[in-house]
Amino acid sequence: MYPASVHIKEVGPRDGLQNEAQFIRTADKVALIDRLSDTGLDYIEVTSFVHPTWIPQLADAVEVLQQIKRRHNITYAALVPNMKGLYRALEADVDEVSVFMSASEGHNRANINKSIDNTFPVLQEVVTEALAAGKTVRGYISTVIGCPYDGKTSPEQVRYVAEHLFEMGVQQLSLGDTIGVGVPTDVDALLTYLLEYYEAEQFAMHFHDTRGTALANVVASLSHGITTFDSAVGGIGGCPYARGASGNVATEDLVYLLEQMGIETGIDLGKMQQTGLFMEQLLQKELPSKLTAVARGEQRD
Amino acid sequence: MYPASVHIKEVGPRDGLQNEAQFIRTADKVALIDRLSDTGLDYIEVTSFVHPTWIPQLADAVEVLQQIKRRHNITYAALVPNMKGLYRALEADVDEVSVFMSASEGHNRANINKSIDNTFPVLQEVVTEALAAGKTVRGYISTVIGCPYDGKTSPEQVRYVAEHLFEMGVQQLSLGDTIGVGVPTDVDALLTYLLEYYEAEQFAMHFHDTRGTALANVVASLSHGITTFDSAVGGIGGCPYARGASGNVATEDLVYLLEQMGIETGIDLGKMQQTGLFMEQLLQKELPSKLTAVARGEQRD
Repeated sequence: MYPASVHIKEVGPRDGLQNEAQFIRTADKVALIDRLSDTGLDYIEVTSFVHPTWIPQLADAVEVLQQIKRRHNITYAALVPNMKGLYRALEADVDEVSVFMSASEGHNRANINKSIDNTFPVLQEVVTEALAAGKTVRGYISTVIGCPYDGKTSPEQVRYVAEHLFEMGVQQLSLGDTIGVGVPTDVDALLTYLLEYYEAEQFAMHFHDTRGTALANVVASLSHGITTFDSAVGGIGGCPYARGASGNVATEDLVYLLEQMGIETGIDLGKMQQTGLFMEQLLQKELPSKLTAVARGEQRD
Repeated sequence: MYPASVHIKEVGPRDGLQNEAQFIRTADKVALIDRLSDTGLDYIEVTSFVHPTWIPQLADAVEVLQQIKRRHNITYAALVPNMKGLYRALEADVDEVSVFMSASEGHNRANINKSIDNTFPVLQEVVTEALAAGKTVRGYISTVIGCPYDGKTSPEQVRYVAEHLFEMGVQQLSLGDTIGVGVPTDVDALLTYLLEYYEAEQFAMHFHDTRGTALANVVASLSHGITTFDSAVGGIGGCPYARGASGNVATEDLVYLLEQMGIETGIDLGKMQQTGLFMEQLLQKELPSKLTAVARGEQRD
């Protein structure tokens, strides 16, 4: 019923940190990523080449990529919004490029300042150029279940965007419940529909835990044969208005769930929890991850 | 695949508050329970008649039961450990009596100071007397998946204790993952085994969210036909050593999950979130519930 192993893509250094108001020093980001490289992960999204005006936290993208200790068996990826970002990413010799847009019109306009149809040509250029430079390309589709502006997202809308991105040459799509409204029946409806057209291997699921449903949604995805999940150490990231509660599903919580279910991740839970505690020191606050909270409690004993 | 409706039993005033170090005034407990009575719940476990030496927080059990505004369509239950507790509970005219023990020897000894086999006669006396007094009786079995002393609990151990409790005349058993170690495959194994011998209606599931798996475990239980779940407003309760992270699954989070899945609970989510916020004021801290965090964020806007 469930897959034998799962592939976890760590997005904490990018999707997590980008929402943190206080600037984290480049050396600390590098230390965080180097620790993550030591947990057994083979994929880390390390930064974003979005213009520093929009995300000052990640203005040091080139420096981060240059200063981390790269391991040959780990893919170090970065988010790229446009050609300018791509050139900087290629300069920094990123391993994989990620492009992004939303399944819902309202969120896409709010986030990218363009309609969905006007976003495709921008991404097409980036994807073509990245592939020409020998990079693999990942695509993020946000708000695949619900949108803060447009309400429920239909599976047809997700397919519309997915189809365009696959046609561009994107190799894997990460489907994001960006505002964390989804429940297992939503995941079932979305995946039942999409998997009539695509293979499970073409997708990663990217859940936010805003309403506590992320792990339940992971389990629902597993039963559809999904074997790639995005997560962030500590459970950081996500909507800033309910900070303590939301964020990406925590990598350590995901590893615990999967390993206990007999599904291999290749990740050392103890090291991941220690990285969660390190992250708490960096950010000077308790993070949402339950397994890091357990480790914090054990440390205190 | 999933049931059309689910029955939620609120245990916050008992299982939640009993772990709080600072004494909550009787009037505040009464105000909390009265608010809960207004959310659509039809079952509230309001207190415990354990000796006040053990749980000073609930020393005012009789007063609480006397001062709350009882509604005819709500069952107000209380935990009872022995005959002395039962007499106090009957004096306070509790609607339903709950008895409790553990599936694992280690936890039973630590919690009740008796072996499992020596616990049965004590509970038998309480159950017989409660039934004779015209009360219904609920049983809690703790550590049904894992035990802090003995490790994994086998489904056979759970059945051994369940069989004795049903024979005594207990009407429903609440199966508790007391330390919150369970994942959906554990729930599947336990329920697949037990439901060879019993009906799904004979059980409630009682999950703690120590490792973030409670809602995933609820969904796993639903697919076995379980229709009763225990939860605590705010997600309070549970292991004191990792306080922010653990606790019972939050009632408001459970209601959100179920209602979004199209499963009726009869509970008003907005009122439950407001009760979560009220609880945060009482306890002077942020509670683990995600939906109460969302409400907190919206209030701030």
